[in-house]
Amino acid sequence: MHKIVSEISQHTGEEVELKGWCYNFRSSGKIFFLQFRDGSGTVQVVYSKAELPSEQWDLLDQLRLESSVIVRGVVKAEPRSPNGFELTGTFFQPIQIAQEGYPIGKKEHGPDFLLDNRHLWLRAESQWAVMRVRDRIITSTFEWFHENGFIKFDTPILTPTSCEGTTDLFQMDYFSDEQEGSPNDQVSGSKAYLAQSGQLYLEAGIMSLGRAFDFGPVFRAEKSKTRRHLTEFWMMDAEAAFVEHEGNMVIQEALICRIVEDVLKHCQAELKVLGRDTAPLQKVKAPFVHFTHAEAIAKLRANGSDIGDMDDLGADDETWLTQQYETPIFVEKYPAAVKAFYMKRDPQDETRVLNNDLLAPEGYGEIIGGSQREDDYETLVQRLAEHNLDPKPFDWYLDLRRYGSVPHSGFGYGLERIVAWTCGLHHVRETIPFPRMINRITP
Amino acid sequence: MHKIVSEISQHTGEEVELKGWCYNFRSSGKIFFLQFRDGSGTVQVVYSKAELPSEQWDLLDQLRLESSVIVRGVVKAEPRSPNGFELTGTFFQPIQIAQEGYPIGKKEHGPDFLLDNRHLWLRAESQWAVMRVRDRIITSTFEWFHENGFIKFDTPILTPTSCEGTTDLFQMDYFSDEQEGSPNDQVSGSKAYLAQSGQLYLEAGIMSLGRAFDFGPVFRAEKSKTRRHLTEFWMMDAEAAFVEHEGNMVIQEALICRIVEDVLKHCQAELKVLGRDTAPLQKVKAPFVHFTHAEAIAKLRANGSDIGDMDDLGADDETWLTQQYETPIFVEKYPAAVKAFYMKRDPQDETRVLNNDLLAPEGYGEIIGGSQREDDYETLVQRLAEHNLDPKPFDWYLDLRRYGSVPHSGFGYGLERIVAWTCGLHHVRETIPFPRMINRITP
Repeated sequence: MHKIVSEISQHTGEEVELKGWCYNFRSSGKIFFLQFRDGSGTVQVVYSKAELPSEQWDLLDQLRLESSVIVRGVVKAEPRSPNGFELTGTFFQPIQIAQEGYPIGKKEHGPDFLLDNRHLWLRAESQWAVMRVRDRIITSTFEWFHENGFIKFDTPILTPTSCEGTTDLFQMDYFSDEQEGSPNDQVSGSKAYLAQSGQLYLEAGIMSLGRAFDFGPVFRAEKSKTRRHLTEFWMMDAEAAFVEHEGNMVIQEALICRIVEDVLKHCQAELKVLGRDTAPLQKVKAPFVHFTHAEAIAKLRANGSDIGDMDDLGADDETWLTQQYETPIFVEKYPAAVKAFYMKRDPQDETRVLNNDLLAPEGYGEIIGGSQREDDYETLVQRLAEHNLDPKPFDWYLDLRRYGSVPHSGFGYGLERIVAWTCGLHHVRETIPFPRMINRITP
Repeated sequence: MHKIVSEISQHTGEEVELKGWCYNFRSSGKIFFLQFRDGSGTVQVVYSKAELPSEQWDLLDQLRLESSVIVRGVVKAEPRSPNGFELTGTFFQPIQIAQEGYPIGKKEHGPDFLLDNRHLWLRAESQWAVMRVRDRIITSTFEWFHENGFIKFDTPILTPTSCEGTTDLFQMDYFSDEQEGSPNDQVSGSKAYLAQSGQLYLEAGIMSLGRAFDFGPVFRAEKSKTRRHLTEFWMMDAEAAFVEHEGNMVIQEALICRIVEDVLKHCQAELKVLGRDTAPLQKVKAPFVHFTHAEAIAKLRANGSDIGDMDDLGADDETWLTQQYETPIFVEKYPAAVKAFYMKRDPQDETRVLNNDLLAPEGYGEIIGGSQREDDYETLVQRLAEHNLDPKPFDWYLDLRRYGSVPHSGFGYGLERIVAWTCGLHHVRETIPFPRMINRITP
């Protein structure tokens, strides 16, 4: 008879037992309304003093928020309830009455207070909903990739060098001090860096597997305190052999359409909890809007921006641009000067690369960055030099062009930005269980 | 007409075009046998000098191993071929002829050489097979958890303290030096540690979600150089509210049965490439063998071991034990003294905990560790003291017992050990794309 809330619709008229937590309650003195949650959903249990054994009613009187409880009741259709059902309570038993002083209450709390209590804030219905949407996005991503021939290929976090030659790297000693190193130890006394992307490793993977993706935490020691930045966040990188620039965008479009479609299909209750207007999400359908970087710059300047021809787009530029259209926007062919060494140049304009960003609507901005990769050995050696990168640590990467190089492309998405967009959240800090920011690694 | 190898069985009698790599070839002077791979599978293409345009035949003559190529041919059933098909070649075009000196050849290479060339070794059919089995295990894990009400909950890597109070932690500065810290910055000048497990965070997650799992890289700065250890490896942690010790083992058993069943169902070709005898895997069915720790000790001593009553089991003990039985073995109720502070004591014997290891057969040993967690606030405070752990960093964890504590249990599996077992590999270094060991963080 022990059930979970998400199953009760199949048991109308039956008595069920549920185990979970009390997230709210009120009492008229004769009727006790218990808001019950168990992780699978929430339901109201209505106890009548006249119907319940008095010792159980007395226990209800001592209830505190977030106490763990066992409830029993008869399932009843209730159109006014969010999930269409409520329980007519027949039994109540506390498991543990919460201590006094549960820190999160009805009143508004500031973000620092909520983040200090993240381990408890997660129980709020809004945070429960965000975590379930996040799980749905992860699941849809896995499903779409597997249906399309991609294999999960877990790229390393501990790396001897940076992928893109950036400076925002977390660094640590790797068995440097106390190690009784043998003369053959390659890394004795060396540093390790936390990966910012698995892309270069994934390129090795596709030369074996054809198509591959990774999906794990990456790290940026950026000093940015913005609503779009975390120091630790989850990134999905995908890479495919024999896919060129145009095909790369087709893959991205199909993946994003699938994610949004699945969130709309499976997470209506969660989006409702979050107050997310789903109308904009319903408009996310292929084909997406496409602009070249040059076209995007022209639009921004027509709107009064003083952005230069060969400038990268800033966050504000992206925000404005995405507010003008209903679908996500591909911006392609950025100036080579503002992009990474491994991007293939546009054969029609050598000052530009065959890359794209994908900007989410409603001001959310960049959620994906992708490109066709340079596959010619000599050209790639030259690019490393142009970017002032020591070719030695990239020797293994150059091997991928020495031995059976093929045209290939890939992209990466930032999970937290996609969660923020689909959930309609302003700040990415709510989109990950335990956010890490420049001034926060607790709890 | 562009297809992939895994699709050709649907195109018997048709001409198809494939893009991929030449992994081997031989020529009789009149017939050229090209072993072709494209990531989805391998197929032999048979070219006849008499049938092929001479300029294409000349290109075949210049072929080198691991060159990238486009081939066309007519699909023909061929019972002697591993996948039942071959191609009668009609067209050949190299994409890039590999440079001379592809380092990996037919001869035996030592492990260090292969690991130095891991980015290329991954193309070996054996490594391709391992990566595909790994992907299958990951996929089955996600599917099983989602079918059973678990939500993915990504626990953090950067943590301010150790989960189990162990010393094998990688440590780094977290914005300590150059940061223009505000007085409110909590972690200015502080250290961060790379997580060894997400368990404690997952326990916070289930108080919101009911059931949750994580699956990501974890880190151990262990100086062990054994066939079972990596410094970076992938761990899956699962946790469930209202599940006690016995139920916890039921979940583990069902998950492992599903994984093995799916690998047998979907990865026959890969297991064949690896020469894996599948008979032992077919015997992995519920119910698994169960021993208490005390029973396991008695068996080991009967076999001549001098292991003490309250000793932990060593790797050699596990190896021997698992060679005696055909199913995995649960060993439960270890001495509290050798286990972590958060494990709940056995009410029948306070010197022992309600934990289990799960040992894989054929000598593979520990693949899972799990336990019921202590859910009483006062008891947990006492356990921290007994383990000489400062309670301050665990204050948030204690909150989970202050506010709505519930009985709960969980476990973690080491992905690489499960891959090694199912693939029949001796060493875990082949089970992850880019292994990190005490003396290796390259390539």
